[in-house]
Amino acid sequence: MEMWEAIRARRNVRTYAERPIAHKDLNRILEATRRSPSSSNRQRWDFVICTDRAQLEDLSTVWRGAGHVAASAATIALVAPNGDDARTRESVQYDLGQATMSIMLAAADLGIGSGHAAVSDQELARRILGFPEDRFCAWLIALGYPADRPLTPIERPNRRPLEDVVHRGQW
Amino acid sequence: MEMWEAIRARRNVRTYAERPIAHKDLNRILEATRRSPSSSNRQRWDFVICTDRAQLEDLSTVWRGAGHVAASAATIALVAPNGDDARTRESVQYDLGQATMSIMLAAADLGIGSGHAAVSDQELARRILGFPEDRFCAWLIALGYPADRPLTPIERPNRRPLEDVVHRGQW
Repeated sequence: MEMWEAIRARRNVRTYAERPIAHKDLNRILEATRRSPSSSNRQRWDFVICTDRAQLEDLSTVWRGAGHVAASAATIALVAPNGDDARTRESVQYDLGQATMSIMLAAADLGIGSGHAAVSDQELARRILGFPEDRFCAWLIALGYPADRPLTPIERPNRRPLEDVVHRGQW
Repeated sequence: MEMWEAIRARRNVRTYAERPIAHKDLNRILEATRRSPSSSNRQRWDFVICTDRAQLEDLSTVWRGAGHVAASAATIALVAPNGDDARTRESVQYDLGQATMSIMLAAADLGIGSGHAAVSDQELARRILGFPEDRFCAWLIALGYPADRPLTPIERPNRRPLEDVVHRGQW
């Protein structure tokens, strides 16, 4: 897909068709994720990719808003080091945001929808995913072909107007 | 450009050709940015776009690592609310990371390079950009056509290998 089409077609998708995602497509999304920029190229992240139905159902219980993970075709768990200080934790989150957008746009390019979930029960997430004590699971990004309608460019996104959010030269 | 090409061609660019960026291309990058997802669609961000050379030179002094902003064709300043608590500040940074990646990929699609800068002197940034007291300038994203060579897909990115950074099912 053309980039400009994918950027306009991406939307949060939380209901998924039963169709699986081909292994090569998941790998392409993960390759895009791996290439994301990060502070001093530190890459303070690991990505756990889950496709097993029982595991996805378990994962969907780590936060009250993660129900859509259960029926996703795949979910990428973003795992990062526990930061020692506020500055580190904020910097890690910024980098994870960059990785997240890479996932979502690479998925949209393939017609695959995506939806975020936070993680409130870290101990449960740790038991399900097996990451070490010095890490936390920051986010889950659920993936799947949309159950409702294919991804096509959105003409009027539900966003603040350009002239409101953009300032030219000065606030 | 095809999305997959742009994802592989994006790289941090800090030396820029003198060529300006067309107004319509800047607007397209800002449109992509505006469409980024955010927590509960709160869009806790404003974007100040700077193209004036004297202003860019001033902006390049807000952090010791922001020198590349001076010769950029344009720089987008990401301004966000001062968060009252750590959780809010981390959430804002995550969302700004998503917006940043939208900028960088939309720019790469047009053959335009991009490079981050942090902001350490908030009072100076405020004087230059005019944003209110209850906001801070989180990041600068400098933009410009690369001075060295055009953006083309990178075969071997300087990143952890896929098999190291990706875990299948379990850590």
